[in-house]
Formats: sequence, structure tokens, C-alpha cells
Amino acid sequence: MRVKKGKRSIEARAVWFENGMVRMIDQRLIPQRFKVLDMGDHFQVAEAIRNMTVRGAPSIGAAAAYGMALAARNGVDLGEAANTLRGTRPTAYDLFYAVDHMVNSLELGDDPVKAADGYADQVVERCRLIGKHGAELIEDEQKIMTHCNAGALATVDIGTALAPIRAAWNEGRHIYVYVSETRPRLQGMRLTAWELYNEGIPHSIVVDGAAGHFLRKDVNMVIVGADRIAANGDFANKIGTFDKAVLCNELAVPFYVAAPISTFDFSIPGGNDIVIEDRSEDEVIRVGRERLAPKGSTALNPSFDMTPAKYVTGFITEVGILRPAEIDRVRREKFAGEGDL
Amino acid sequence: MRVKKGKRSIEARAVWFENGMVRMIDQRLIPQRFKVLDMGDHFQVAEAIRNMTVRGAPSIGAAAAYGMALAARNGVDLGEAANTLRGTRPTAYDLFYAVDHMVNSLELGDDPVKAADGYADQVVERCRLIGKHGAELIEDEQKIMTHCNAGALATVDIGTALAPIRAAWNEGRHIYVYVSETRPRLQGMRLTAWELYNEGIPHSIVVDGAAGHFLRKDVNMVIVGADRIAANGDFANKIGTFDKAVLCNELAVPFYVAAPISTFDFSIPGGNDIVIEDRSEDEVIRVGRERLAPKGSTALNPSFDMTPAKYVTGFITEVGILRPAEIDRVRREKFAGEGDL
Repeated sequence: MRVKKGKRSIEARAVWFENGMVRMIDQRLIPQRFKVLDMGDHFQVAEAIRNMTVRGAPSIGAAAAYGMALAARNGVDLGEAANTLRGTRPTAYDLFYAVDHMVNSLELGDDPVKAADGYADQVVERCRLIGKHGAELIEDEQKIMTHCNAGALATVDIGTALAPIRAAWNEGRHIYVYVSETRPRLQGMRLTAWELYNEGIPHSIVVDGAAGHFLRKDVNMVIVGADRIAANGDFANKIGTFDKAVLCNELAVPFYVAAPISTFDFSIPGGNDIVIEDRSEDEVIRVGRERLAPKGSTALNPSFDMTPAKYVTGFITEVGILRPAEIDRVRREKFAGEGDL
Repeated sequence: MRVKKGKRSIEARAVWFENGMVRMIDQRLIPQRFKVLDMGDHFQVAEAIRNMTVRGAPSIGAAAAYGMALAARNGVDLGEAANTLRGTRPTAYDLFYAVDHMVNSLELGDDPVKAADGYADQVVERCRLIGKHGAELIEDEQKIMTHCNAGALATVDIGTALAPIRAAWNEGRHIYVYVSETRPRLQGMRLTAWELYNEGIPHSIVVDGAAGHFLRKDVNMVIVGADRIAANGDFANKIGTFDKAVLCNELAVPFYVAAPISTFDFSIPGGNDIVIEDRSEDEVIRVGRERLAPKGSTALNPSFDMTPAKYVTGFITEVGILRPAEIDRVRREKFAGEGDL
């Protein structure tokens, strides 16, 4: 991703390895401040995952892979290091997958940093392909709405929902992005808007409740990410996604989900089996140290919602655009015998 | 409305006349602090309208009426006082209506305070009737979602959308209210939750993007207010209202609009003729003094959206529940010859 530094700009990933250290952008400070942290052991990496210096399941996975590389270089017991990293966040599937991948690679004698770089590169390559396929959907002068941050910060580089937007922009199309602010944590306003600003892509932030107003006015398509997709195409994503899907259906605006095939959880038949995480009410009722709600009031804070497949125009994946009905065919044709997806 | 003060509670209106002064709740401080301000002349009242000490079109109208009463008691030129009060806020129709009403009453020799009290009492009586009719729609153990603040603070007392909720609660039904926080200004979290807390009505605050999640889960009906209703039933209300109406339609949840007949603007044939006010982007991108958005990003901040009549199950008014198709009949039957509605 491009990051403006004064009059010039640099290329950065959310997390990478350099000069014997794991380096990562401190996402807690974005957009107010751009700061890169250096980490010399896997304990520091584990703490960075826990305290959300790095966030987004694919970026967390890559950070864990690099943490394992540090452990190997430092001669630490790999089983203990794996347990330390696995214990940081409970829900991100990529975290466990990345740690297992590194344990296997290291047992096979692979170079630790090369193995971790390979893991991160594969994440980014999938995003590049999502961008390539997705950009074909976007015409010149179109307006696209997105939600939350499914950008480079979340996926090492490029992003999922932001990948087609970056690709269309880089191919010279004049596009405009509506960024849904994404309460309660405001990942849209803080992170997605920051990525678009750095790329120079025209955009405006809107409150989540303004989705319908702008979808009716002039939005040509919505592209969101996904945290988990069931075998039938129902999917979980940041709270507020379902509302946009229903509005798109009513207003005949195409609604796309951008995600790598690894996001499909074929062990889950449908969306009703996806567990929705409830988070602390403090995220809703406090801003900084100030409590905005009355003392006697409580808040409910589901972090995700579930959108049925019938509202999805298509899934933008590294193997192309899939209609919900094509998911099962693709799984059987392309991935038979490959084992874990 | 009931306001808890330590272990006891008092009854209060948003604005009233007492001991030669206009008194009003400082709504800028709710819910952190309950403070009543006293005003001895119409200039202070005008400033209170301008700086949003008092807000909500019906409460603004009543405040202006009391401001005119002060002007009359103080022997001030009534034409100048009327101009001062009219110049405070540009869009609230009730403000102009209330000032004209007072000018006419004072020219007829009415007692100033009695005339202003009469105006405020009429506003409250309409809310009481909205509550009476609307409560018949609410059954025991039901869950109701509302948006923004169409409560007692906005309408002198009782409220419009909150009127059926208060009435059903006072009649002994066990109800539960989902309060949509209503970004950017958070009138749901700050004002509606405060009113419900003071009445002891069980409720939870949710972010605007969680509407679909809870509407699918267990909401039995949505009740919102309206800022202006066109002759065909299309209506403008706080941004985020349209999204909820579409979601209700898709999920078969009844969607009601609570408003007095005076909210109908029969000079406007349909919703596309309702002008939507755009407000400062600062309301979206700043919280307190802190800017949350990147420096290079802008925000769009439409204050209202327009909901087509086809999504409205019924209008809860002081003359009963009206289906959109009944609006024109009611106008002709009940109000022929009455002039300005």
C-alpha cells in the first residue's frame, strides 16, 4: 500500500520482516499517526496481536507466521512459541492456520523467514487476483460503497474489498468511494478512508445510517469483505453489512463480497450456524474516556451480522467471480483432494 | 416526563413558564447533567433556540410562544420580538407557526402566558392522543425499535414516537425498546435512552448498523417520528429512517410513523419535493475536539432521508392510525374549511 510521507510516498505492508526484526504498522494510531514498530522476539509479536497493533485476520496470520520465524531464529522451543501465539486472539482462523503452517515448514527444515515471507506473499497474491477479477466489474465514473476495513491493513497488502477499487483506479478509471464509517469502532472512517487518501482515490465518509440515502442516489455497487462464508454462501461480516445487502436488493444495486476461497468454511452448511461474537458495550457507549449514554442505560454490541446468500450478486475470489449457486461446483472441481481449504 | 432526582423523581416539561420566567431543560447537557435554565426576556429565549438548549420542532415552537409572552409582559415591540425569534433557526415550521399564533392572540388581547400555555398544552394533548391510539398496537412482551429522539424533550412532553411506548408501559405492558444510537449527533443514545431510563422502561442502545440484525432477531415493530410528511405519505425524518423502513418491509416487521396532523405538508405532493438539509461534515468526523478521520478525507452529512409511503404500515396521529391511502380522505373529511393545518 502507498503511504504519503510529506511530499513523497512509500510502499508498505501491514507487517513484514527486515534486518532481523518483524516490523508492523501500529494500526491503533491510524489515521492520526503513522508509526512502524520493530519486534525482536515472538512475545512482542504476540502482544502486538493481542493489543490490536495488527488486526484483520490475514494480517494477524502473517504476523503470527513471522513470530514463529523469530522464535526459530532465536532458538526458542517452537511448541511453546506456537502456544503463545495461538493464545492471543480466540476467533481469527488465519492465526491458527498460519502457526500450523509454520510448524510444518520448520519441521521440514525450511528457512524460517522465507517460509513466513512465502505465507505473507500468498495472502497478498490472492488479494491481487481478487483485485484483477473484481476490477472488471467496475466501469469508468462509477461510485462504489464499502463498509468497515477490508483493506491492505487487514490483509498484509492490497485488501479484499479494496482490491478491486485499487485495481480499477490503477487502471485509470475515475471512481468515487463512499466509506461507511462503521460504528462502533469506526474502521471505515479511520482505516479505509486513510488507505484511500494515501492512494489518492476520491472518497467521502458517511454515517452508517446514510447507506440507504446514497444507495438510492447514485451508488453503482457495494463491495464488502467477509469474516466467514458458509457452504451455501451465507456469510458473516462486520455489523451493518446485512442492512446494506437488503437495501441493495431493494434498490437493484449489485452487492459483491470480496474474499479469498480460504474464507469459505465448508463445514458450516448455512448462516444460522455461524456464531456471532458479542463485544463489550463500552465500544458503543464510550468515546475515549467519556461516557455518552445515560448511567442507567445498557448497550448491545454484536460485532458481526449474517447476510443470507440470496442477497449476494457475486463473490469476488482469487479464482474469479462466483455466484452463490456456483460455490459448491467450484469446491468440487477445483479443490477436490486438496484437503484443508 | 419523569426525571429521576436521586431516590425520588419529578415531573418536567422541556419548556414551561413559572414565576415570571421561561424555564427549559438544557438539552445540550443531557444525559450527563440535568439543568434547568431561567430566562427573563425573549432575547435569552432566542439564543436558547439558536444554541440548541431547546430542540425538536414542537419544543422550539413552544419556546418561541413563551418568548413572545415574555416580550408582551416586558412591553417590548412585538413585531421586533417576533423577528428576533423567527431568525433563530431556518427550517422548523413550528417556530413560525407559533410566533404567528402568538401575534394573533396578543392582538386579540389574550393573556400572554395563558396564550403560550395554551399553545404548549395543545402540543402535549396531541402527543397524549398519539400515545393512546398507538398503544393499542403494542401487545404485552413486545419489543419496539425507535430512532433519533421523537420524545418528550422534542415535543414539550410525552413525545410522538415515544408516546405509544410510554402509554403501553403506563398501561402495564412489559415492553422492551431498542434505541438506535442515531449518528452523527447520537440523539438516540443521549436523549431517547435518557427518557426511557427516567421512566424505568427496559431498553438497550444499539449502533445504527445493527438495525437489521435485531429486526430479524426479535423486534415486533418500529416506531419513528417525522419532520415533514408529503400529501402522498412520503416523509422526511432523521438520516437512517429509510434504511429501517426497507429492512422492516423485507423482514415483515410493521413500520409506524408517529406524528401530529400538523406534520403533513399538503402543499408537497411527494417525497422527491422535500428538501434534505446537508449539515457540516464536522458532525461526522469530529468527536469533541478530536478529529477521527484522516486529514485528507471529507464527509457528507445529510441530516434527513426520505422514506416512500409504500414502506409505511401506518401513521399514528391524534385522530387515529392512518394508512397512507387514507391521508387524502382524512384531509378532505376532517379538515375541509379549517384552513391551515
